[in-house]
Order: sequence, then C-alpha cells, then structure tokens
Amino acid sequence: MQLRTDLAIERFAALPHGEGVSRQDEQRGDIQVHRVQVHTQKAARELGKDKGRYVTLCDRRLALSDTELQVQQELSCTLAEEIRPLLPEEGCVLAVGLGNRHITADALGSWVIEKLLVTRQLQLQLEHDANLPFRSVCAIAPGVLGITGIETAEMVRGIVDRVRPSAVIAIDALAAREAKRICSTVQITDTGISPGSGVGNHRMGLSRETLGVPVIAVGVPMVVYASGIIRDALSLLVEEAQAGEYDAERAVEGMVERVTKDALGELVVTPREVDLLLGRVASVLALGLNMALQPSLQPEDILMLVNDHL
Amino acid sequence: MQLRTDLAIERFAALPHGEGVSRQDEQRGDIQVHRVQVHTQKAARELGKDKGRYVTLCDRRLALSDTELQVQQELSCTLAEEIRPLLPEEGCVLAVGLGNRHITADALGSWVIEKLLVTRQLQLQLEHDANLPFRSVCAIAPGVLGITGIETAEMVRGIVDRVRPSAVIAIDALAAREAKRICSTVQITDTGISPGSGVGNHRMGLSRETLGVPVIAVGVPMVVYASGIIRDALSLLVEEAQAGEYDAERAVEGMVERVTKDALGELVVTPREVDLLLGRVASVLALGLNMALQPSLQPEDILMLVNDHL
Amino acid sequence: MQLRTDLAIERFAALPHGEGVSRQDEQRGDIQVHRVQVHTQKAARELGKDKGRYVTLCDRRLALSDTELQVQQELSCTLAEEIRPLLPEEGCVLAVGLGNRHITADALGSWVIEKLLVTRQLQLQLEHDANLPFRSVCAIAPGVLGITGIETAEMVRGIVDRVRPSAVIAIDALAAREAKRICSTVQITDTGISPGSGVGNHRMGLSRETLGVPVIAVGVPMVVYASGIIRDALSLLVEEAQAGEYDAERAVEGMVERVTKDALGELVVTPREVDLLLGRVASVLALGLNMALQPSLQPEDILMLVNDHL
Amino acid sequence: MQLRTDLAIERFAALPHGEGVSRQDEQRGDIQVHRVQVHTQKAARELGKDKGRYVTLCDRRLALSDTELQVQQELSCTLAEEIRPLLPEEGCVLAVGLGNRHITADALGSWVIEKLLVTRQLQLQLEHDANLPFRSVCAIAPGVLGITGIETAEMVRGIVDRVRPSAVIAIDALAAREAKRICSTVQITDTGISPGSGVGNHRMGLSRETLGVPVIAVGVPMVVYASGIIRDALSLLVEEAQAGEYDAERAVEGMVERVTKDALGELVVTPREVDLLLGRVASVLALGLNMALQPSLQPEDILMLVNDHL
Repeated sequence: MQLRTDLAIERFAALPHGEGVSRQDEQRGDIQVHRVQVHTQKAARELGKDKGRYVTLCDRRLALSDTELQVQQELSCTLAEEIRPLLPEEGCVLAVGLGNRHITADALGSWVIEKLLVTRQLQLQLEHDANLPFRSVCAIAPGVLGITGIETAEMVRGIVDRVRPSAVIAIDALAAREAKRICSTVQITDTGISPGSGVGNHRMGLSRETLGVPVIAVGVPMVVYASGIIRDALSLLVEEAQAGEYDAERAVEGMVERVTKDALGELVVTPREVDLLLGRVASVLALGLNMALQPSLQPEDILMLVNDHL
Repeated sequence: MQLRTDLAIERFAALPHGEGVSRQDEQRGDIQVHRVQVHTQKAARELGKDKGRYVTLCDRRLALSDTELQVQQELSCTLAEEIRPLLPEEGCVLAVGLGNRHITADALGSWVIEKLLVTRQLQLQLEHDANLPFRSVCAIAPGVLGITGIETAEMVRGIVDRVRPSAVIAIDALAAREAKRICSTVQITDTGISPGSGVGNHRMGLSRETLGVPVIAVGVPMVVYASGIIRDALSLLVEEAQAGEYDAERAVEGMVERVTKDALGELVVTPREVDLLLGRVASVLALGLNMALQPSLQPEDILMLVNDHL
Repeated sequence: MQLRTDLAIERFAALPHGEGVSRQDEQRGDIQVHRVQVHTQKAARELGKDKGRYVTLCDRRLALSDTELQVQQELSCTLAEEIRPLLPEEGCVLAVGLGNRHITADALGSWVIEKLLVTRQLQLQLEHDANLPFRSVCAIAPGVLGITGIETAEMVRGIVDRVRPSAVIAIDALAAREAKRICSTVQITDTGISPGSGVGNHRMGLSRETLGVPVIAVGVPMVVYASGIIRDALSLLVEEAQAGEYDAERAVEGMVERVTKDALGELVVTPREVDLLLGRVASVLALGLNMALQPSLQPEDILMLVNDHL
Repeated sequence: MQLRTDLAIERFAALPHGEGVSRQDEQRGDIQVHRVQVHTQKAARELGKDKGRYVTLCDRRLALSDTELQVQQELSCTLAEEIRPLLPEEGCVLAVGLGNRHITADALGSWVIEKLLVTRQLQLQLEHDANLPFRSVCAIAPGVLGITGIETAEMVRGIVDRVRPSAVIAIDALAAREAKRICSTVQITDTGISPGSGVGNHRMGLSRETLGVPVIAVGVPMVVYASGIIRDALSLLVEEAQAGEYDAERAVEGMVERVTKDALGELVVTPREVDLLLGRVASVLALGLNMALQPSLQPEDILMLVNDHL
C-alpha cells in the first residue's frame, strides 16, 4: 500500500509495532515530542525510512498568528535543544536551504536560510586568530535542477569539498499524510535527505555517505497530497458501510482517479493562507537553528543581528 | 445542498434545466466557449448567481508550459473578442485587480494589473487635446481589508467617484468545484463581483448598482475546496456501493470532517506548481484585456510596451 | 539661485536670518532636534517653503547597521513624541506611502506602509461598539501616475472622501543638498506635501487645503542631486582660488554640464548600499509612527503585531 | 593618480598611447565597437588591467525606454557576435551572476542569470545520448561573502570542479569614471574578473589561472563614484581658471573631502531611475548571451522559452 509521507511518525503509526524500531513520547508543556529510532536494516526497509534517529515536535502554535513572541521563543528553544546534540561540538556548519523558492509549497528552505545568522566571513575577515564567541556558520540556497541546470546534490558536494564543514544542516519542505500536520510539525533527523523525499521529490540524497560529513535534516510539512486525503476519506466510508464482498480497494482507486483527473499536475492540499503560515514557520525554525548554532547569544541579540541583514 | 463554486457553468450543471436560464456552447478550435444567460430573478435565486451574462472559456493550454507563443496569443485573442462587446464604445476604463497579493491563491488580480497597459496619464500629460490611438485605461490593486483597513469596495467607490470611468473591469481569483477547472478556465461576466465570491470571499460586491458604472468581472479558478473534492469522492463511492438505508449523506459529512479536522484554516486543493501556473495565466489574461482595450495596437506592440514597464 | 532640497533646514541655512521665520535647536542625547516655523506669507516665498511648522531630527545612527535595538527604539520614541502633538486627539488616521516602489530612491513611503499597524478593520469587523485600546489607522500606497494612470492626489482625495479620516500622514522620500543628510535626517511638517517636492517630484500637493483634513508629512532624504553636490565643490574651489574677475558662476555651470552630460536621466548621489539603509530607515520610521498612533501599546507588542503580518 | 574605473576603455583614454597596447574602433550602425588588446606584462601594469582582449560596445539605446524590440534585438545580436568567438566550440558553459542582489547597483549579475536559458538538465534527464540542438548551459548566482559566509570564488571553484564546464561566463555590475557610460556600455573581456573590480569590489578574482577554464567577463557600468565625478569637475575649473602656482591638486582633494564628508558609506552617482534601467539592460544582456550560447535558436524562440520560466 502506498503511503506517501515524509514523516517518520506517520509511517510508524501505519505499521504494526515491530522489532528494530523504538519509540518514545514526551510532553514539554504544550509541545509533544516524539522520538523514533530505527535500529536495523530490516526495520528500515519495512518502515521505508533510513536507519537513524527521528525527532518530531508537534505544536499547533507553530504557525498561528496569535502566537505571542514568548511562545515563539519557547518553540525555537525546544527546537534548539533537539538539534544541538546532533551537531559536532565544534567546527564550521554549512546550512543548505533546499527547494524551489518560486513555489510556495517548496520554498521553506530558502526562507529559513534568509533568516540564518551567517558568521564564517568574520573569521575570514579578521587577520589574526581571534577567539570569537560565534560558531562558524555559512549558508546556501542551491535552487533546483530545473532552474540552475545543476543537481542540488552536485552543488552541495562541490561546496562541501571546498569549505570542509564539520556538519551540514539541510532544511526542506515536506509532504505529510494528515492535514493536521501541515505547519504544525517539525521533523529532525540525523539520516539526512533521502532520494525522492520532500515536496520537490529530490532526485539525489544528501547524507554522510554521499557528502562525507554528518547531515542533519530539518523539515516541516507544507502540504498533503490530495490523493492521500481522498483515499483516507473513502477508506473510512468503506469501513463504516461494511461493504462486504464489495471490492472496496479497487473502487477507492477509481474514485480518487475520477475526482482528480485532468488536473494540471500533482494536486496538493494546503491551507488557503499557506503563504502567511510559511513566514511564521520559517521564523521559528530559523530562530531555533540560530539558537542551536550560537549557544553564547541571547535570543534578543540573535533577532537583532538577523533583522539587521534584512 | 452546499455547492461552493464561483463558476456559473458548474452551478448550471448541478441543477436541472429550468426556465429563466439559457445556455449555448461553441467550439473555437481547441477552445470551448460556454455562454450562460440568467434571465429572471427566480432563476437567479435557484442558480445562486445574479441575473446577467456569463461566458466561460475552457482550454487546458491556458497554463501549460509548452504552450507556444502563438497559442497564447490565440487564447488572448478569443478572450479579447468576448470582453470587447461588454465594454462601452468609448470612455476611460478602470481595471481593478482584486485579492491579497501575499497569498498565491488570491494573487491573480494583482499579477494581471502589473502587466496591463496603462494609458490615462498620456491624456493628462499632453497639453492640448490630442487624438491618441489609445483608449484611456487606468489600473489599481486595492489590496484587502485586513491589510489596508479599508474595504476594497469603499476604495474602488472613492476612486470611481473621482476618476469617473465609463466602465470597471475587476480581475479576481476564483474557487471551482472540479480540480480540472483550475487554471484552465476563464469566466467573464457582466454581473460584477458578488458578495462572498472569490478565493478571498469578498465582503462587499462591485456592480453597476453599487458603483454606478458597468462592472465586468474576469476570473480564473486557482483552487478547489478540499471539502468539496472529498464530498465528490465519497458521493461516488456511496452511489457505487448502493448503501441502501445507510444514511450516506450524514456519514459523508462525518468523513469530510474527520480527514480535514485540526488543519490550520480552510483547506484548498491546488496543483503543486500553482505559483508557476499563476504567472502564465496572468500573462494570457493581461494580453487579452490589453487587446480588448486597445484594438488599434498589434499584439507584438502591446507586449513590447508592457515589458518596458517591468 | 537654484537650491534643490526638500529640507526646510537646508533652505533656512542658505538664507540670511529674516523676519517671519523662527528657529529653535535642541539636543536630546545623541539626537539633534531643529524646529523651524514660517510665520508669514512673505517669509514663505523667500524660503520657498509653505507657512507652518517643520521639525527636523538628525542622527547618523538612524541607518547604521551596528545600531542596537535599544538605540533604534530611542530614535522611534523621539519621532513619536514630535508627531503626536500634530495629530488630532482622536479619530481615524489615514497613512499614505508616496512614491514609486520600483525605484529604490523613491520607495521609502511604500516600505514604511508595509510595517504600519493597521487597525481600522477591527472596528468594522466587530458588531457592537467596542471600546478598543487602538486608534483607528488605515494605510495605502497609491503608486504614481506613470504606473496607475491616476494622479496620487486624485486617488488620495477619493479615498479621503469615503473614509473621512480626521488626519492624513504622508510618508515620502526626499532629496537633500548635503550628502551627510542622506538617511540620517527625518523631517516632519504640518504643511503637507508641496507640488514638485520629493524624489518623485510630485505633480500635485496634499494639504489641508486640497484634502480638507490636516496633512502631516514625514520624510527622509535618500539622495542628493549630483548637480548640487558638484556645484558645491566648484563654489568652494572658486572661493579658495580667489578667481577675481573670472566669471566663476558661469564657469561653474559649464563644468557641471560637462561632467554630467549624456547621462541617462537626472543623476543622483546616494550611498552604494542605499537599499540596505532603506530597510533600516523604514523600520525606525514605522515604529515611530506606530508609537505615535498607538500610545497604549508597548514597543515590544507593536513589533510583535507588525511582524505577524510580514 | 587614482583612476577608479572598471572600463578598460576609460583607462586607455587616460594614458598616453604606449607600446604593448593596441586599439581598434568600429561603427556598426548606431553601435560603437572599441577593441583594446593588452599584449605585454609591462603595458598591463601601466594600464592597471590584465593582459588580454577587451571589447566595449557603446550605445545609449541599451537602456532607453523607447527602444523598439527590433533595436533591442540588434544590440543583443551584436553582443552575441562578440561573445561567441571567445567561447570554446563545444562543451558545457557555466554562467555566474556576480554581486549582491539586494543592492540595486550590484544586482545586474543576478538579474541576467534569471533570464538565461538553462539547458544542462535536459541532458541529465534523458536516458540515452540524444543529439540535442542545445548547448549545455548551467547558471548560478552565488551571492557574496557577507550573505553566505562563503567567498564567491570558493563557491565557483567548488562547482567548477564538480560540473567541469568548458568555460565560465561571469556577469558583473561595474563602476565607470564618466556618467555617460552608465547603462550605455557593455564590456566583454577574456581576462576574467580581477580582484578589487566591480561595484562589489570582489575580494578574489575568477580567471583561467584560478579556475582552470577560460573565464569570459561581461559587465555594464551601473554607477560612477561621486569622488571621481567631483574631481573631474574641479580639474576642469582649475584648468579654466589657470590657477598658476595655486596648488590645485591639493585644493581639489580638500574640496572633494568637504562635500562628501559624513555620508554613510561610499557615495555613488547613478540615474534616479536606475532600477528601471537595470531591468532593460539585464534583458538585452541575457538575450545576447542566449543568442551566443544557442546559435541554433531564433530570438523569438529564445524569448518564449525564457518567459516560460518566469
């Protein structure tokens, strides 16, 4: 059965509990924290997600407009606490904002990069070895193959070979199964970016295997696929109606086909005001990343330094 | 039964053929042209659309990327031929791009206005009465109440009172029922903009009654509502399964509710690359409007004059 | 003698002290506050500025990148204290961002409007008379004649007639004489916008006379004219060289002509990074205006409410 | 003597004709074509420009708004004819748009890249070796050190090592000495990008020496430095006034200092409507580059394919 989602937590929920996968849930105030670890190759194959660690933060306040500044900082803080242990203790970090910034559903990576505190140039611009209170951070938004003519993974590889960061953080827009996950969920994983994942369906992956350095992926679902949401509705109805020998699954496929046919491209479902939600989500993510990367700075200082470049 | 769509053609299809409404279809090459006229108040109430004329142009090529320039001009030309008869023979025309330009699904009006050929200032800048080969055209994008603090209809009214155009053309993003209509359909009507219509659910209407001049509305569906597309799928399944005494309608409502609950706002369904489709649709619409407003200019000249302002 | 500047303070400095004009200077920490009042029609003619009050705030920190958040709020606070006495005690205020947002040198008005707290819709959206702690504020950026085909003054007049604000605040980009004034000076006046003023050389003015309500103009110089800065240099050299019977003034004109000839349009002088300065200046201005308009809100709350709309 | 200009033609004019440099002028309709070749190391030192070939196209119509489409194509065609001989006969070409796109005076590179026809992905997306009528072209806009934390030259080097193009074309915004050159001049050179050149004063160069492949640089002056234009005016006056033993040069320096002091950063002189000129210049440059890179395509086809991605 086809389960199209980038969220480990949705895949895990869809399969019976098995060996090789462990899960741990936690409540931190209003934020739900779910940790999934895939231990074995076999479990990875069944789950459809690589071996490694996945942390999912769930909180509807992530993109709500009446979120007080204080709440936004609480969310960013929790995000920072989950990302920091995955980073090497020191060394330069390269942040990569994936996706096509001309497509709202795929623009999250670019938006977050815009608000990141970039510091690597300070080291380069000082003549002597200064002991700066900053971690060295650099950032790129490599676009997509259709716009640059260069595979994102090629471009990142070439820059990693020159810059030699100690780790890469990749930010990406995701697709989920359930509409309630859109803009209310953050997934953090040390498994990097898998081929085929993301709203953009990345052609090639970014991982320790391909880049030679740890890759931490951070993503937020911006859409669900219309086919998925329709299948869910139909499956519910079939259950309720106890359709008996009725070949429900085949009928379901036919219905999905009929209501989505002749549309111009893959249909996605998203909140009507997703463009506004995008901005708020990007701000919370960026602040959380900045807090993880610059533990010596206060949130207010980070906000001031970032706004200064806007 | 709730049928949420701004397209007269979809409302008409949903009701049994009755008195007070006439329909005429035509094929112009690859373009389907549907004309609906609502003659009586009674038919207007049943249809849920005001008395007047509705022309719908359907062509998948409207937003396809491999549309040759020649095809785009063919579409714009057909559009121009349908709009021109609805305009007064002479006199200034005010074009109004409705909607919130920060929300992709609602930005069509603003995008079209950006590519419109504006000429009214030429008359104002010449000292003597020149016999220009241009029609006087001016254009505004008044934004929305939540951004300006001013009702769109208030702003348009105030400007109409000063500028005294002979007609208003209002461009708007619409919602349809069927996904195949998205970015492949143009609706032109002399009934203006109804309260509650459009992706933005306009609070007040724009019509001859409220503005004192003819209002021609031009719109393209950019989204369908997720609830609508899910209901359609469920209804199909219910028909097929012949669920008997099963209270299908109530079950359907419950399913829609369950798969869309907890989402952040009204869910819409749209092609994933809608941002790219938006640009192409806006170009075709703008060229068609420019051709309708400036019959003495060649398409190549229009394109050159417009590009010059970009 | 041609003295092209929108700053009253520069015009005043260029003329001998005369009757009908009074001036008062004050130092508020690092901010210089200059007040000029033009009392008589005769003085207005000599000065080339309308009768009324002009307040000029000078502080290089207005646009410097290492300006701490605290300093920015100090500047905004001082700005608010000078604007507030010029506003009516209560009643709706319409903010108008003048200029062409596609031209950086003329975009200040639009940028400030984007960051203004707009509240008039709250009153419209509540069913009963609520006693809100907000002043009713609405905001528009009417563009320019060359883009809309409508005179800015026409558009503002039409909207003022419908909305009936108790005052109008017009924000505009100015031209100065001395380069040091660029992005370091704010001029506030109760005389409104004069015809011919601003980087855009407004064709028509906006004032109590033309709109029927008080018009407070707020502006910051973004450019100086190259011809002016060159004339100044030449005049200095002429003084130094004690050129005697040498017809210095005619020679000066000739030099200016020769070094600027054949350029594509009026040459302006501006800091190379003016686009970055523009953002900071717009932020400080917007915060100051918001503080003046919403005395019951704290700066932190204002910043949060405004960022929420971005 | 300090002569700040990126144009070889202005440096050449300022020095007496010497050995090791040859110059040839040509008139092609309304377009002036100047060719300068620097043959020896000694001449390179005196000229302040690297050994190699420089072609300068001069035509005021480059950015004028009433330039007919036909004229724009004539300019692009001439540009293409000068660039094509500098490119290898076959092999992939990497286009690099230099500069900071947030600063209008430095944004030309980014704007041109946006309008370039990118084709390398077509080869990558086809499974078998197809004989496409396209040259393989890819394009990046690497930003600047202050925004990414990565030296532009580092990033380009890393990408060149992965992609292995047969040549690089670098597009850059330049500074000139005379105001008449702004937006009316195109410089093409096979010497690449020199350290310190461009509006952005590049820290490191891009050349065959540093990248291992030929680098063709294409640039247009967007500004002149205010200090330069003022020095020119003063020098003219000094000549005229025959100031005798008057230490003119020292006085001139003093004047420049006095009229530009206290400004916020390096002052540049640019036409007031430079933002609009930028768009037109970028269009002409991009079309010329596309015509040079894709000799099998007609201009109309190029324009259609490019617009399709906008």
